[in-house]
Amino acid sequence: MYTPNQLQENIENAIQNIRYPAQPERLYQPIRYIMSLGGKRIRPALTLMAADLFGAAIEKAMPAALAIETFHNFTLIHDDIMDNAPLRRGKQTVHEKWGVNNAILSGDVMMVEANKHLSMLESTVLKDALETFNTTAQGVCEGQQLDMEFEELQTVSIPDYINMIRLKTAVLLGGAMKLGAQVAGASSAQASQLYEFGVNLGIAFQLQDDILDVYGDPEKFGKQVGGDIIANKKTLMLLKLKELASPADLSELEGQSRNKNHAEKINNITALYDRYNIRELASIEMRNYSDLAFNALNNLDVEEDRKSQLYELADLLMSREH
Amino acid sequence: MYTPNQLQENIENAIQNIRYPAQPERLYQPIRYIMSLGGKRIRPALTLMAADLFGAAIEKAMPAALAIETFHNFTLIHDDIMDNAPLRRGKQTVHEKWGVNNAILSGDVMMVEANKHLSMLESTVLKDALETFNTTAQGVCEGQQLDMEFEELQTVSIPDYINMIRLKTAVLLGGAMKLGAQVAGASSAQASQLYEFGVNLGIAFQLQDDILDVYGDPEKFGKQVGGDIIANKKTLMLLKLKELASPADLSELEGQSRNKNHAEKINNITALYDRYNIRELASIEMRNYSDLAFNALNNLDVEEDRKSQLYELADLLMSREH
Repeated sequence: MYTPNQLQENIENAIQNIRYPAQPERLYQPIRYIMSLGGKRIRPALTLMAADLFGAAIEKAMPAALAIETFHNFTLIHDDIMDNAPLRRGKQTVHEKWGVNNAILSGDVMMVEANKHLSMLESTVLKDALETFNTTAQGVCEGQQLDMEFEELQTVSIPDYINMIRLKTAVLLGGAMKLGAQVAGASSAQASQLYEFGVNLGIAFQLQDDILDVYGDPEKFGKQVGGDIIANKKTLMLLKLKELASPADLSELEGQSRNKNHAEKINNITALYDRYNIRELASIEMRNYSDLAFNALNNLDVEEDRKSQLYELADLLMSREH
Repeated sequence: MYTPNQLQENIENAIQNIRYPAQPERLYQPIRYIMSLGGKRIRPALTLMAADLFGAAIEKAMPAALAIETFHNFTLIHDDIMDNAPLRRGKQTVHEKWGVNNAILSGDVMMVEANKHLSMLESTVLKDALETFNTTAQGVCEGQQLDMEFEELQTVSIPDYINMIRLKTAVLLGGAMKLGAQVAGASSAQASQLYEFGVNLGIAFQLQDDILDVYGDPEKFGKQVGGDIIANKKTLMLLKLKELASPADLSELEGQSRNKNHAEKINNITALYDRYNIRELASIEMRNYSDLAFNALNNLDVEEDRKSQLYELADLLMSREH
């Protein structure tokens, strides 16, 4: 079996070897650009890992892995337009570099490229793979829509928030694994079990990200600690606080949300989180989902020793700050 | 065999029966909206007509027809954003009604919906259908990119212009027919022949549209006569004129391009077209492509009497003003 590092290397090579048409240059340059910005290639690695788990050659699953990674990068281009984001992985976003119209259209053609990769799969698995891929892609779009709508709302219930991150982030991890399993000829029960693993791991991972935004070690956390606080982002932390805070503390929170002094804002809102034990409450929620993920993996009908890579990956994802 | 009207009726019914998810409402409302704005449903009708030509039940080809129509409407949503268009078929465009971000995302999920329709095809034809669909979709994106780039250029060669309309408009007609043929189990030679018919018909149709913009009967032409002139759009007419005009007439054209008096601008530029016999020259170009289309149809290896609907449709499309 392959280690995650070996899989990532295979994926990087495969991405380097994708040939996009030369013309129109401005249509395909942004695709080469975003695909080469890197990232950890976790999603396609999950696809290959799932295929490997069932003894399939990873080359067989590579078209599915590339479809997933291409689709993911397409969503980054369009999400960055919608979020008006200037930077992505420390570099200019596509719409900043090439303009919004170009970014819309390059994203569109990336979606076609993703489908082209997928269509390279063997005929026998194609129908199932399409079903998984399309359902996943649809879920991701729905998640982004909910995320945008939540910005306009005063508050959001925690189940609605979890549903949003499930769609926006987690189903792509689950779908990536299910695809790998399907390509490898796993049973539909096995594929579903891996999907459950991926989705719940994805939710836990996002909830952990919410917690680390407040309590992460600035040295280890990849992003600015307190970024969500500054942006008044409705994370699990903020929603829990809104549920529990006294009227006085709610009005303190309301006041802080308009505080232009970012350091002070982070300090004061973190103090409110501390007052209501939000870190612990959020961690419980997070662990519920990581437990669901590990249960799904335990129940997966595959020899135990073949699962070690998945346990390792899950540990790696869930222990960035433990 | 079915008449074009019967096919259109079947398509309208099938579109009415598509069930999109209820939530998130703002993601799916724009899809229902644009799909219900109507139009002549020419592209999906071509798919069904091609399937019918080879004796397949039209129900068998309906998923491909719906994929084509859904994809087409997705491109309308995104093109309208890029073109900053306020109206589509006399109604507010999606981005005007729901905002740009929503329009981007509803378009994205429509692309997924198109792929979902396509994936409903029988497994035996799925791989070929995906290849045709993805190649077509990619071509349409490339055409839109070229169209946007041409706006920034001083002038464009006529072959480059033809290539742009081939991609932006014509390959979708060709691809729609090829899909129908493939679903019906036609040979690849037959499918390619129908593709040639559709693409060349599409180019001829667009060139005719360019001519009618100047010389159309305002009563019969669906759009404002002179619309392209007012917008300084680089149509076949304008590009031919730029090739042929004397320096003095070129500078007259240049001056007129900034004329704010639209009636006067249309009159004066039409006078330039008349001076250089542009209508006739453009008509020759158009007839080259309609001849290519009819040749492809003549050479198509199918009993002659089964082709009558296609001849009728082509005549209908090409004789709006004859």
